[in-house]
Amino acid sequence: MRKIHVIGIGAGDPDQLTLQAVKALKSTDVFFILDKGEVKSDLTRLRRDLLDVHRPEGTYRLVEARDPERDRAAGGAAYSPAVGDWRSARAGIYERLIAEELGENESGAFLVWGDPALYDSTLGILEEVQDRGAVTFSYDVIPGISSVSALVSRHRTGLNRVARPVQITTGRRLAEGFPEGVDDVVVMLDAHQAFRRYADQDIDIYWGAYIGTPDEILVSGPLAETAEHIARVRAEARERKGWIMDTYLLRRHPQGRGGAAE
Amino acid sequence: MRKIHVIGIGAGDPDQLTLQAVKALKSTDVFFILDKGEVKSDLTRLRRDLLDVHRPEGTYRLVEARDPERDRAAGGAAYSPAVGDWRSARAGIYERLIAEELGENESGAFLVWGDPALYDSTLGILEEVQDRGAVTFSYDVIPGISSVSALVSRHRTGLNRVARPVQITTGRRLAEGFPEGVDDVVVMLDAHQAFRRYADQDIDIYWGAYIGTPDEILVSGPLAETAEHIARVRAEARERKGWIMDTYLLRRHPQGRGGAAE
Repeated sequence: MRKIHVIGIGAGDPDQLTLQAVKALKSTDVFFILDKGEVKSDLTRLRRDLLDVHRPEGTYRLVEARDPERDRAAGGAAYSPAVGDWRSARAGIYERLIAEELGENESGAFLVWGDPALYDSTLGILEEVQDRGAVTFSYDVIPGISSVSALVSRHRTGLNRVARPVQITTGRRLAEGFPEGVDDVVVMLDAHQAFRRYADQDIDIYWGAYIGTPDEILVSGPLAETAEHIARVRAEARERKGWIMDTYLLRRHPQGRGGAAE
Repeated sequence: MRKIHVIGIGAGDPDQLTLQAVKALKSTDVFFILDKGEVKSDLTRLRRDLLDVHRPEGTYRLVEARDPERDRAAGGAAYSPAVGDWRSARAGIYERLIAEELGENESGAFLVWGDPALYDSTLGILEEVQDRGAVTFSYDVIPGISSVSALVSRHRTGLNRVARPVQITTGRRLAEGFPEGVDDVVVMLDAHQAFRRYADQDIDIYWGAYIGTPDEILVSGPLAETAEHIARVRAEARERKGWIMDTYLLRRHPQGRGGAAE
């Protein structure tokens, strides 16, 4: 039976690979790389660099495919359906890749940035491919260091404070309001710097871009003092490299300052 | 200057170590292990096993200390102050360990289960030791695979659904009510199986104990069908081994079933 590994490869630092991930890399016959076009070509190259370190040339096959365009213009309520269409289109591509490029007893792998569990579509797509029933395969998931975990490690702080919750959400949701019932919020996929909306509140931000890579940028401090600085630094970096991957933690101080992270 | 590594060692599977963690292990002179007594001695042994794999005997020093007892009886509002007292007591121990057991140019390490960023006190304690100013040292944090990430990888599902948030919280908080504004909730530190309170709702649970170890137990399904089963399995396992480490994801279906994880 065909076997697929979904391998979390960490947030950018090649040393964030786990030993489990290295073993899976070494036992894989075919690597599938879905290219999102020029914007993300740096990311494709980083994945190839990882393979170069752990697999001698000529010992594996690399299959590249073009990811369908996602309708990013669709806003608000239209967001989820657009993602649905896009995922079905991708499921068709994945199905074809597995059926046509992978021999009956071979193993394939998808290399996922960060952790496949956080804001990544690979697991949902593979489930959809299995549900279609046109191609049979088994798959496992190898967890990776998420950009969330990498972010706070570089800032040497925790995600939660003592006995308190933390929420991980999107820039789109943060723009609609600060989440209920939590004071520690990690924000991903924020193209519009929603944090600026909260610059008048007693909130610290721990922001990072290209975390774990030579281009890493870290900024932290009270939002009132750092929000515009971060927006500027982010715009400059995005202009310079052509793309950006950033994440941040907001830490609200409900009853004045204090309360170190546990 | 003294250097400290706070190393996330993953949730139980020794192969969840990252390459970065292995490098840090190899460059450490002194490992500090704080023993919480007999109940946790399996965990101390697992850490020693990790060292045995990556460091030849006689190439490092191992310093063990007894962790002060935490006042777990203190409930409700008393929880945070009790944690505070306990952390100060630990800060005193850490300070002494660093000052007395680590030479001026040596490096020490604390090995933390899972990820130091999630419900672990080591970073808060080191910050407190630095603030006291009695001993000078620098420290860095090496992220690890959290039990949260390990849990969902074994269940082959994501933490969040498409474009939606996820909250990580404690059993104590879940017992007070289902968090506002989220349908995906990961619960840690739940000694009282708070999930049973929600068995009449349309919620799926993905539960796991001793994840990544030979004793791993996984159960998933609708809470209505699994809650009592999990409580029973958990009690039996805890009785058999003398301790348990478990985590779970609750996934609520607000508008009927469906909505695969992304």
